[in-house]
Formats: sequence, structure tokens, C-alpha cells
Amino acid sequence: MRVLESYLNGAWRSADGARTPLVNPATEEVLAEAAPARGLGEALQHARDGGGPALRALSFRQRGALLQAVAKLLHGHREELLDLSVASGGNTRGDAKFDVDGGLGVLAAYAELAETLPDAPWLVDGEAAVVVRTSKVRVQHVLQPRHGVAVHINAFNFPAWGMLGKAAVAWLAGMPVLTKPATSTSALAHRIAEIILQANVLPAGALQLLMGPAGDLLNHLGTQDVVAFTGSADTGAKIRGHRTVLEHGVRVNVEADSLNAVVLGPDVQEGSELWDLIVRDSVTELTQKAGQKCTATRRILAPTALLPGLREALADRLAEIAGRTGNPAAKAVKMGPLSTAQQLTDARAGLSALAERARIVRGDPQRAEFVEAAAGKGFFLEPILLEADPAAVLDRAASFHRVEVFGPVATLLPYDGDLAQAAAIVRLGGGSLVSTVYSDDREFVARAVAELGPQLGRLVLADEKGAGGSFSPGCVFPQALHGGPGRAGGGAELGGRTGLELYMQRTAIQGGASQLARLFGG
Amino acid sequence: MRVLESYLNGAWRSADGARTPLVNPATEEVLAEAAPARGLGEALQHARDGGGPALRALSFRQRGALLQAVAKLLHGHREELLDLSVASGGNTRGDAKFDVDGGLGVLAAYAELAETLPDAPWLVDGEAAVVVRTSKVRVQHVLQPRHGVAVHINAFNFPAWGMLGKAAVAWLAGMPVLTKPATSTSALAHRIAEIILQANVLPAGALQLLMGPAGDLLNHLGTQDVVAFTGSADTGAKIRGHRTVLEHGVRVNVEADSLNAVVLGPDVQEGSELWDLIVRDSVTELTQKAGQKCTATRRILAPTALLPGLREALADRLAEIAGRTGNPAAKAVKMGPLSTAQQLTDARAGLSALAERARIVRGDPQRAEFVEAAAGKGFFLEPILLEADPAAVLDRAASFHRVEVFGPVATLLPYDGDLAQAAAIVRLGGGSLVSTVYSDDREFVARAVAELGPQLGRLVLADEKGAGGSFSPGCVFPQALHGGPGRAGGGAELGGRTGLELYMQRTAIQGGASQLARLFGG
Repeated sequence: MRVLESYLNGAWRSADGARTPLVNPATEEVLAEAAPARGLGEALQHARDGGGPALRALSFRQRGALLQAVAKLLHGHREELLDLSVASGGNTRGDAKFDVDGGLGVLAAYAELAETLPDAPWLVDGEAAVVVRTSKVRVQHVLQPRHGVAVHINAFNFPAWGMLGKAAVAWLAGMPVLTKPATSTSALAHRIAEIILQANVLPAGALQLLMGPAGDLLNHLGTQDVVAFTGSADTGAKIRGHRTVLEHGVRVNVEADSLNAVVLGPDVQEGSELWDLIVRDSVTELTQKAGQKCTATRRILAPTALLPGLREALADRLAEIAGRTGNPAAKAVKMGPLSTAQQLTDARAGLSALAERARIVRGDPQRAEFVEAAAGKGFFLEPILLEADPAAVLDRAASFHRVEVFGPVATLLPYDGDLAQAAAIVRLGGGSLVSTVYSDDREFVARAVAELGPQLGRLVLADEKGAGGSFSPGCVFPQALHGGPGRAGGGAELGGRTGLELYMQRTAIQGGASQLARLFGG
Repeated sequence: MRVLESYLNGAWRSADGARTPLVNPATEEVLAEAAPARGLGEALQHARDGGGPALRALSFRQRGALLQAVAKLLHGHREELLDLSVASGGNTRGDAKFDVDGGLGVLAAYAELAETLPDAPWLVDGEAAVVVRTSKVRVQHVLQPRHGVAVHINAFNFPAWGMLGKAAVAWLAGMPVLTKPATSTSALAHRIAEIILQANVLPAGALQLLMGPAGDLLNHLGTQDVVAFTGSADTGAKIRGHRTVLEHGVRVNVEADSLNAVVLGPDVQEGSELWDLIVRDSVTELTQKAGQKCTATRRILAPTALLPGLREALADRLAEIAGRTGNPAAKAVKMGPLSTAQQLTDARAGLSALAERARIVRGDPQRAEFVEAAAGKGFFLEPILLEADPAAVLDRAASFHRVEVFGPVATLLPYDGDLAQAAAIVRLGGGSLVSTVYSDDREFVARAVAELGPQLGRLVLADEKGAGGSFSPGCVFPQALHGGPGRAGGGAELGGRTGLELYMQRTAIQGGASQLARLFGG
């Protein structure tokens, strides 16, 4: 059996202890084993002593060239990575591209951003400000890379995008990375790290890989380190509340659960291009990656009059995909399995919770036979659509406002067609990564921006005119902020230049006007 | 006895339970009693339902006018507030001005900032970005006021500046405030709130005041609320690790302990103007507010050759102030007492800890008689200067790198005159609010910006040319960021426009180019 080791402190390493088998979730075939590791304190120090100073010595443009080199290198292995993604993650080829090309896309976008940044190792932020009218003293803010390690703890659903997307931003900001993929799908992250490390394109210490459990990693964090975590709200809270994190004021970014909503405006016409887009987007968000996306739609709000037509259209399309759910190695398959047995168990438990205040209008959570899948093998769940009890829609305690079922599952919710009610319903989700408003009613849309904006990391607006060229709401662009308030973790990643700030320290430099001008220009 | 009540949910209120006596720390005379309060969940909801929508309905300029009205109103009560500050906080008149005028200064600066902001309720952040080259879809980031309450938990040392400074930023951003002063010095905050509330200059629910203990306040926090805390690292960690805060992803800003350092460059000449500035600043930072400032200098790094001269100069000037330490109601007094009996006990315990690796070179921690103070009354501590054991200077475990004595106390540390060593020593403080470099050596200063910047919220540069017009490093300007990484809490307040972001949510609005242009202009 192939054993996948960690790359720490300049070498591939593993320690004694239980190894975790990595399985193909469609066949349950064991592909490799992830070994545990030790020496995590030394690994973090290696990054701080080596990778950090090396990256800080480079200008943004030089770091951008590193991102380009990494992107080019991985592009040369794209087919191999897509195949591995299908085998190790239960992904269809489309899902695999979404993950792998998404990661390459962030590298490319941040390499492009580098071209717009000064040929310097850090940023001068705004202009020097007068502090007292009669004085020559000024204040100039600067943004400098933090002198620690960027620790990336990623989710199982996007081993490539999560790893490369986080690393691209940290590297461009000037911080070294220690990345820990979720174990179940870590074969792909391991292979990506192997390709990069073998090619020796990055300074020593700029990339380390931790396989298996996190062990005592958090105990070794220091005041200049940054933790960026994507995963469950429970684990996010554990990291935020960890003793060392609190004691040293470690900066932590969390992307967690999210009950993303879409809202159909009262003006939407059945059969319009916008209507077709709503159906297409909703099906994509339910079924892409078998619904295992933090940005997938979980709540679909429709004016009462539009709901029956939408229910019917979605049920039809989902039935079609249900018929093509199975082993993604087969060409006919349009949706693969969930990633692990535990995910399937959790999803079924979540469906039971949802069923307290909603009824299943399509799909069978217990279905056992799937396309080209051996009987009793694989962690499959077919697409499930629920519809809320209208009396529960505005109830804060209703399960569809609290429970995120991380699979091909969404709930239809009727509302009265007024933005005020739609906003009240969306708000019961307690903060989300993304929501979408489909409408050509300008006042409805303007009110949605004001009322929904602060609840969200991203608000997608779609109208009839743009329906043909719109992107499904779960698609995350490197130029747009990714992260949301409240339940979604309160984090902020990506978003172009703003994303760099997660890895930088803003400092006010106070001094004489001419002294500051000499140091910073201007 | 006068009982000070809370202003919650539209009325002055108190609950049964133990009242806390507020004493004059110079005489121990009881001035008033702070009553406990209940109904904190209702008070937060009152702010969310009333104050929030009312402030969000205003443009930045209209909110700026509110700040101006509050500043003008309080200015009319300035003498009364200064007197109360002297009697209730152990402040000299100079200390009282530093606090009260500092608060008025933040109101004025943010009112002035409002003039530069759009006549709109929220901000369009940057320009619309292309997400895919061939597509018309764009992303526009906006910054909108959060739909919750700004909960301000302030420190005892600046009841006016802490309260008004935090509130000015939250109000301008568009968030209602519930402010909780530290009980010991809350008489001043209570009076300020009383003046503002009686004049009815703010929308209902925009300002609430919680006297006495925080009770179950944190249990009622929600996903859109913001907590800004100034105080001890321990309490900061308790807030950050509070179950409700973690569960709802409440945004928290912490300003905590800080072992602020100053560094004398190797080029400094004894007897120069810069030398005089160093002595003057160091004495100010030791003795202003009896050293009870989070920005006060705690570690003074001097090249070995310069240290004896600096020791002598500081000892002389501190002896003079020691002779004028006492009841600040007396005109001759230059330094008052600590704020509470507990602060005095803690400071003496801290001095014992410092004395493990440093010796006292001036001052007597046990001195009992002070100017115009009754024998055995008042919480006085005279200025104490320590000097580090040279063998301990680079020892991470040395107490002067770990223990902040919150009083008129600082430690001299010798170093070799090289920036690398100075930076290594400063870094052992684990992140600070402010540090200062005194030097005319341009390379030394440029390296200090690169090496020290990320360890600090603010870096003050002072040279011979600017020595006459420089400000003491502990002076916080509303235009400059206040907050530091690591031990200092990882927070960021003030800093002009950037300070507004603590109270706002950044959201990516995604849509067609023409749709976004219609909504946001451009």
C-alpha cells in the first residue's frame, strides 16, 4: 500500500501511529494511506526562519512570477490531477475541473494582480495624514507581510482549489504556508505538493504539507501566524477558542456552514430566460460536487404563486440527474457519491432534521442502487428537494434555517413576494457566504442590496437581460470576496487586493512629513 | 449616596443587587454607587430595532453632523467634566484633559472625515472588477453598516476617550452603541452619557449605557453585533472564547496588554535635541496618567554606551516628579495615584516579578507618604525605573518581556547598537500597540520600518530635525490606527476611514456591468 507522507522541515516525513486509509468513495477501494507526522513546532519555525524571510525579500512582482511558475507547472500535470480527483474524491470530470481549474485560476488571478502592485516587498496604504493642523507630523499606514506562518486547514470538498487558492494569496502577500488537507480527499493535495516541491520552484520553507491529523499543531502557533480554516462551524469554534490562539492573539479566518439562499423576485415570469436560469442554477447548485460546496444553494425562496411551477421544473430536472447518479468514472454519470461514509450518515441525519418542518417533494434518501456502482458499495445520495411547511418559514427554530445538509439537498420556501419578508427569511440563516436575487424589478433589487448585503459575503444579482451570460451563484471568483458573517464564520478571503490583508499587518508609521516622504515617496 | 443607573431600552434603570462604590483614588472618599442592571437582551434588541435602522437611514454627512452636535454639547460641559475626571479618576488636570479632550478630538476628527465621504448611507469600495475576460459579469465590493449593536467594553484609564472614541467611529459607520465603562472610574462616563441623552441629540437607541457588571450581556450577542473591548489580555481572551461569540461568529476587537518599547539609535548624541526629546518622552510616558496608558513605554532600549547617561537623566527627572506625586486636586501635584487599590496591589506584584531579572535604579514601591494625601489613604505609587540584567535582555522568559506593570514603571535594556538585536528584543514583547525609534541614521530607520512594522500597531520615528515638534509616543491620534498584533490583542481601531470597517460588512455584489453601474454609478 502506498503511504503518503508529510513534507515538513525540508523533507518527506512520517511518524509511527495509525495510518488513515484513503478510499475511492464510489467503490470503497483503498487508494493509499495517510501517515501521521510529528515535529510540527519545528516545521512552523522552519517556515518562520526560512520561507518567511525568503518571500519577504521578494517584491510583489517576483512573488507573482512564482505563482505563475506554479500554475504553469501544475497545468502540465492537469490530466493526471483530474484523473486523481475523479478517483479519490468521487468527482465527475466536471467536478474535478471545477476544483483543479479553480485552483489554477486563483494562482493566475493573483499573478495578474501582482502586475498591478508596486515593485516592492510591501504596500504603502493610502496617503500620509495630518494629525494636528499646526504640526509637521504625519501618519502613513503601510501593509507588510506578517512575520509568521500561514497555516491553512482545508475542507475535504476542494483539495486543489482550497489549497492553491489560499496559498496563492499568502505567497503573494509574502507569507510561507503550511497546508493541511482534510484527510479523506488528501491524495490530490499530496500529489500537488509533490509536483511543486519536486520542481523546486519555491524558496525553501515556503510550502509545507501536513498529512493525517493536525496533532498538536495549534499549540505551536505564535503571535505573527495566521490560521485560515475552511470546514465545520464546530471545528472553526474550536480553533478560535483554542488556548494558544487566544493567548497569542493569533489571527484566525474561518469559512464555515452557510445556509445560502436564492430569492425569486415577484416579477419573474415562468418560461422567461430568467426562469430558465433559475432552474439551471438551482440544479447546478444542488448537484455539482454532489452538493458538497459551502456556496451551494440550501434555501430557495419563491413567491407563493411561482412555487408550484418551480417545484415541478426542478423535480423534473433532478429526476433526470438522479437517473445518472453513480460511479463518476462512468461517462454517463452526472453526479457522484458523497466523499465519505460519515458524510452520508450526517447528510441522512440532516435530512431527518429538515423533515421536521418540511416534506420531501422529490428523491429517496435511502436509495441503494446507482449507475455502475456495486451493490452496497459507495457513499451515494440522490438529489433531494424539500418544501417547507409554510407556517414554519418565518420560524427561527425551523431546521432549514439551522441545519446545513452537505449534499445534493435544498428546500423550497414560499414567501409573500415582498422584499421585507424575503430579507427576514434569509436573515434567519444567521449570515451566509452567498445569496442570489433573480429579478428585473429595480426597486426590489436596490432594497435587496441594502437589506441583504450585510448578511452576506457575496450577493449575486441576475436579471432577464444577463440571464444568458450569468454564472451559477456557487462559483467563487478570486476577484470577489469569499466569506460571510455570523454562521458562515465571519471570514474574508480572496477579493483581489483586499484578500492580501489577511496575511499582512497594517501599521501606522508616524513621523515628520519630509522623513515619511523620503521613506515612502509621495 | 448618589446611585448611578444604566440607560437601557429607553430609560434610566437599575436592578436589585450589590452596588459598587466609586471612590476618589487619592482620598478613598466614596463619590457615588454604581447599580447593577438587568434586561440586557432587551437592550441589545432595542438598539437593533431602533437605533440601527435610524442611523442607517442617515448619510455619512448627517451622521457626521450628529458627532459634531455631541462634541459641541460636551464642550459646553468641559470644565465640569475635567473636575469630575480629577475627582473620580485620580487624574491631574493635564491627565483629565488628555482623556476628555482626546474624546472630543475623536468626535471632531470623525465629523471631519464625514465631510470627505459620499452623501450616502454606505460606501462603494473600489471599482467594479472583471471576473472572466469574455463576460459582462462584474464584482463591486460595498461596505455597509452591520445590522447589529456595537458593544463597547472600556478600560478604567480612559472613561471619556474610550467611550467617545469608540462611539464616534461606530456612529459614523452607522451602528448603535451600548457602552459599558469600567466600574471604578465610570462616574465620568455616566455623566457624559447623561449630558448626551438629556439633550436628545441622537436617535433613540443609538446610545445605551451599562453601569456595573457586564452580567449576561455576552449571552445575548448576535451574528451582526460587534464587540470592541479594551482591557486586560485575560478578559479579552474570555470574550473571544465566549460560547455565544464563537457560536455566532460575533466580530470582536481587542486592545490588551502591550509592552511598548522605545529604541535609541546608535547615532544618538547625549545633549542633542533628540536626546532631550528622548528624556522628555520617556518621563511623559512613565508618569502621564501615572503610567496607566496601554500605549505607555515599558521597555527603553539603549546602546550600552548610552545607557548610563540615560539612566542618570531619567532618574533625575523622575525624582522631581516623585517629589510632586500626590492628590491631584492640589496644584503642585504632577502625578496622581493609581485608579484602584487592586491596581496598586497588581502593580507591586508586577514590580516583584520584574525585579527577578532587573534591578530598581530609582523609586520605592513601598513609599507611603505623598503630597497632600492623608496618611495611609490613596492608591499611590511613585515613578519606578528598573534596569535589566544584561544577560536577560534576549531571554524570552524574562519578566520585562512578559509582565506589563500598569503604573509609572519602565525598564532600561542595554543592546549592542545594531538594529537586528534591537528588533529581536522588541519582538520578545510578542506584539505591541506602539514602539518608537529615535535616530538620524537613515539605514537604521529604514530597517526598523521593515523589521519592527509587523510587530506593531504604530511605529513612531523621531529625529533631530523634528525633535522640537514631535509628539510623545503614547499619544493616540484618530487618524492613526490604534491596536497591535499578538499580545496587544490583534485589534485595529481608529485610523481614519479604515476604522469604520470594524463596524461595516464588506460584501461583493456580483452582476452585469450595466446593472452594477446603475446601482452604484461609475
